Amino acid sequence: MASAYISISRINLSHRAISPSISSKRRYTTIARVAQNQSYWESIQSDIDSHLKKAIPIREPLTVFEPMHHLTFSPPRTSASALCVAACELVGGNRADAIVAASAIHLMHADIYVHDNMLLTDRVEPRPTIPHKFDPQIELMTGDGIMPFGFELLAGSMDPASNNADKILRVIIEISRAIGSEAMVSDQDHEANTQIHRLHESGAASGAILGGGNEEEIERLKKFGLYAGKIQGLLNKMGKNEEGKIEKWRALALKELEHFDSKKIEQISTIVTGDSLKFSYVGKS
Amino acid sequence: MASAYISISRINLSHRAISPSISSKRRYTTIARVAQNQSYWESIQSDIDSHLKKAIPIREPLTVFEPMHHLTFSPPRTSASALCVAACELVGGNRADAIVAASAIHLMHADIYVHDNMLLTDRVEPRPTIPHKFDPQIELMTGDGIMPFGFELLAGSMDPASNNADKILRVIIEISRAIGSEAMVSDQDHEANTQIHRLHESGAASGAILGGGNEEEIERLKKFGLYAGKIQGLLNKMGKNEEGKIEKWRALALKELEHFDSKKIEQISTIVTGDSLKFSYVGKS
Repeated sequence: MASAYISISRINLSHRAISPSISSKRRYTTIARVAQNQSYWESIQSDIDSHLKKAIPIREPLTVFEPMHHLTFSPPRTSASALCVAACELVGGNRADAIVAASAIHLMHADIYVHDNMLLTDRVEPRPTIPHKFDPQIELMTGDGIMPFGFELLAGSMDPASNNADKILRVIIEISRAIGSEAMVSDQDHEANTQIHRLHESGAASGAILGGGNEEEIERLKKFGLYAGKIQGLLNKMGKNEEGKIEKWRALALKELEHFDSKKIEQISTIVTGDSLKFSYVGKS
Repeated sequence: MASAYISISRINLSHRAISPSISSKRRYTTIARVAQNQSYWESIQSDIDSHLKKAIPIREPLTVFEPMHHLTFSPPRTSASALCVAACELVGGNRADAIVAASAIHLMHADIYVHDNMLLTDRVEPRPTIPHKFDPQIELMTGDGIMPFGFELLAGSMDPASNNADKILRVIIEISRAIGSEAMVSDQDHEANTQIHRLHESGAASGAILGGGNEEEIERLKKFGLYAGKIQGLLNKMGKNEEGKIEKWRALALKELEHFDSKKIEQISTIVTGDSLKFSYVGKS
């Protein structure tokens, strides 16, 4: 079911934007890499979904947990969650170190998605056209329950054996800022989709923190995440031809990765190079 | 402005429920104690408000921070915040140790209040009659920003010098559970106002944790908070004559306090003995 929301597409981006001439040998390598990266991002998403399904089973009382389950799993997935895991692995961490934070990021995203698409009395056009299984009051209250549940999961991943309390608190700060007042404040470029940008930024930073990255690695991956979020946000606004902006952000994003071992950045870099995950989330515009 | 929302009233409760005969000397003592307790709870509330005003100033961009400030300070105060500070002080902690958690609890309560009173397309009667300065979309998004800001404040109160990360994570678990899925699940008695109950329960537990209480103290104050929340929840549903329930919960609450030094419980006990803070919050029914 989860994979239905993931479409790996080349969209309007191509490797040529970075590599002007591609030989037939290199083209073959690119295709092989796409296949490999498909399974990389999809394997991450599959692990996140498995974790969430265990955390939010459908159980009694059904009036609470059926909407919670539905509103958690019906929104499209966000690449911010997958990026959290990829950043953790890039700095040498284990996937298990980041899977709870990645799940929490999905829950924040699901709450935002549900509330963005609520049918409100004064909602200006265009009105949300997604299917609504539950009435607005249920959607409102369930979204309000999903968000703190994300923080509960995060705080509950404290493990005295690994002495990770400081890291988790830092991740809570990153994620709460991303979805709180900072996201509501438009960024200096007056870009839309600020919450998408910030969620990717905080996702990458959180993965780096949990994977044991040093301060420079955390800062660089945080910036990488911001550019990846800007690109994903723009790609989600279909029909706009903003190749110039995407080129600029892609270059800035890849510059941050130069700090890392070139053999290790291949997978994470695909999120900005056009073989990336293309999630179908349409954010606020 | 804050004190406008606090009415110290005897409501339908009296000391006689606990102390059947009150001599004139004891009546004098009671009056003196009321005055003293007024200033105790009001001084706590004043400190919480001061902290919040520093944390959420009205600043640019006004389109974000004016609604955030307004929707933080216009809801009536919840005694759950004050109880957090009182519990901290009861176990020997300093007020400063609990003021951030108490502020965070107010922010959670403010979000719940704003969303409870939103004008939704399908809202059944009675429709909320509170004044609405902003349209529903602003109220929805601002509430969604206020809640994570509460978690950001909490996580940001980590202080390496006092090595309090574990305590803060435990408080985040308490508070996120109180407002998340657990609050949505009706309790066994099928009482309404579950979020009010849980917010008081988590407030008292959080104060005890941050004040350095031992496990027994934390558990007892958590139970005390739950009963205090049930009483406050019932008092907010004006017009119902449920003295019997209140009597039962008051007795159970006071029983938890027997564990503590009798000289120290005078102030906190007033939250259930009728000289308590009576907040004007009307919760979901």
